[in-house]
Amino acid sequence: MADHVFEEPPHRIRVRYCETDRMGVAHHGSYVAWFEEARTEWLRRRGKSYRQMEDEGDLLQIVEFEARYQKPLDYDDEILIRVRVAERSKVSVVLEYEVRRADDGVVVTLGRTKLACVGPDGKLRRLPKEI
Amino acid sequence: MADHVFEEPPHRIRVRYCETDRMGVAHHGSYVAWFEEARTEWLRRRGKSYRQMEDEGDLLQIVEFEARYQKPLDYDDEILIRVRVAERSKVSVVLEYEVRRADDGVVVTLGRTKLACVGPDGKLRRLPKEI
Amino acid sequence: MADHVFEEPPHRIRVRYCETDRMGVAHHGSYVAWFEEARTEWLRRRGKSYRQMEDEGDLLQIVEFEARYQKPLDYDDEILIRVRVAERSKVSVVLEYEVRRADDGVVVTLGRTKLACVGPDGKLRRLPKEI
Amino acid sequence: MADHVFEEPPHRIRVRYCETDRMGVAHHGSYVAWFEEARTEWLRRRGKSYRQMEDEGDLLQIVEFEARYQKPLDYDDEILIRVRVAERSKVSVVLEYEVRRADDGVVVTLGRTKLACVGPDGKLRRLPKEI
Repeated sequence: MADHVFEEPPHRIRVRYCETDRMGVAHHGSYVAWFEEARTEWLRRRGKSYRQMEDEGDLLQIVEFEARYQKPLDYDDEILIRVRVAERSKVSVVLEYEVRRADDGVVVTLGRTKLACVGPDGKLRRLPKEI
Repeated sequence: MADHVFEEPPHRIRVRYCETDRMGVAHHGSYVAWFEEARTEWLRRRGKSYRQMEDEGDLLQIVEFEARYQKPLDYDDEILIRVRVAERSKVSVVLEYEVRRADDGVVVTLGRTKLACVGPDGKLRRLPKEI
Repeated sequence: MADHVFEEPPHRIRVRYCETDRMGVAHHGSYVAWFEEARTEWLRRRGKSYRQMEDEGDLLQIVEFEARYQKPLDYDDEILIRVRVAERSKVSVVLEYEVRRADDGVVVTLGRTKLACVGPDGKLRRLPKEI
Repeated sequence: MADHVFEEPPHRIRVRYCETDRMGVAHHGSYVAWFEEARTEWLRRRGKSYRQMEDEGDLLQIVEFEARYQKPLDYDDEILIRVRVAERSKVSVVLEYEVRRADDGVVVTLGRTKLACVGPDGKLRRLPKEI
């Protein structure tokens, strides 16, 4: 992952019981929802909620998803997620995610999603200016 | 639950890893998806898929959900789910579900959902004749 | 549902994107996670986290789950969940849940779960005193 | 993705209703469960179920997850998932996944997971011979 800094405040989430699995840790798929929730809050801080974007016909589709898991998390652990723009074109954006345990600041997972902006017709369209 | 018989063939599902939790058993919320999948197949056997119903504007909304858990399930267990109509009105239907472990036939969970038929405008409408 | 009052402060949750479905509303199964998260915070306020209870061998198993859905929720809606004890025995407790939309206070869903306390051996045991 | 062939038979899954989202398509996170289910069946065909591996203390932890989404899927679509080994070391294996729509054979998504084998103590250990 690129070396620029996550400058914005983190989003705080607590691991739900249903997000754990029989290995006794948070299931790796739980990060999909956490990245998504952090992205929702990151967009809101930029001035327009994603719900409003969708209402206006700007749909952000995930075209690539990546996660690298470094440490396990358990039920009730609190995490801090930071989001940043890694790359941007007229119609797509790559976001990176850093997840740290809240209590000791250790990085547990790094993530990356590429989102393309499409209209209700499924055709690529220019990203909203807030992104 | 009423005493009439589940006459139709069961739907078979295998417990996914992500459907377990840190207690080492299938999470109680996993049944929501299993009842739903069994209901999808039960409707298909009646002659119209639920996807087609939605395409035609007949939306079945869950208005009540109940489950009584009697035995735990583990990852990779196979289950057999049977569905039956318990009650029916012009605009709603109550379905009951029976979940058995496939290997020994033991009942693990009983369920019940009440579904109301609404149109795209959210107003109650008559149930499709297949139900 | 019984008529006593929800006296404790509510727990606030925002509907995640992945918790919606193709009907354009929050999926009825999402409430399982929300009740669970509200229960986790309700237990913490009583003086012992559920994670600590499990570490001490007190496992709370869901034996009954019920929800009655009155109004739909959409992505990004904020909800307030209140929890209260409806019934209690030596080894089990029935909790009730009330979910309101945060912006207008309208009740959207009512829920009820019966939890039994079991030890690591799966045998019933006395509920922790915090419950 | 490497160019060797997926030689084994595919695993068939039908998209569940709860796996869709308000965009009217399968949520991108649903693939986590589908890859996992396909991996479970792929391992079973190799002679040992993953449940048995875990019972014997061989835990396969996901350390990297990637997916590239090419086409959307809808509720009730049937998919065919193929799994193959892309790389292997003494303690880890990289699996690749190809998801096709069953009705027209179109590739909808490609995936990749790196799994490390650890013991109950969390330390790396040699992969079971079946992998």
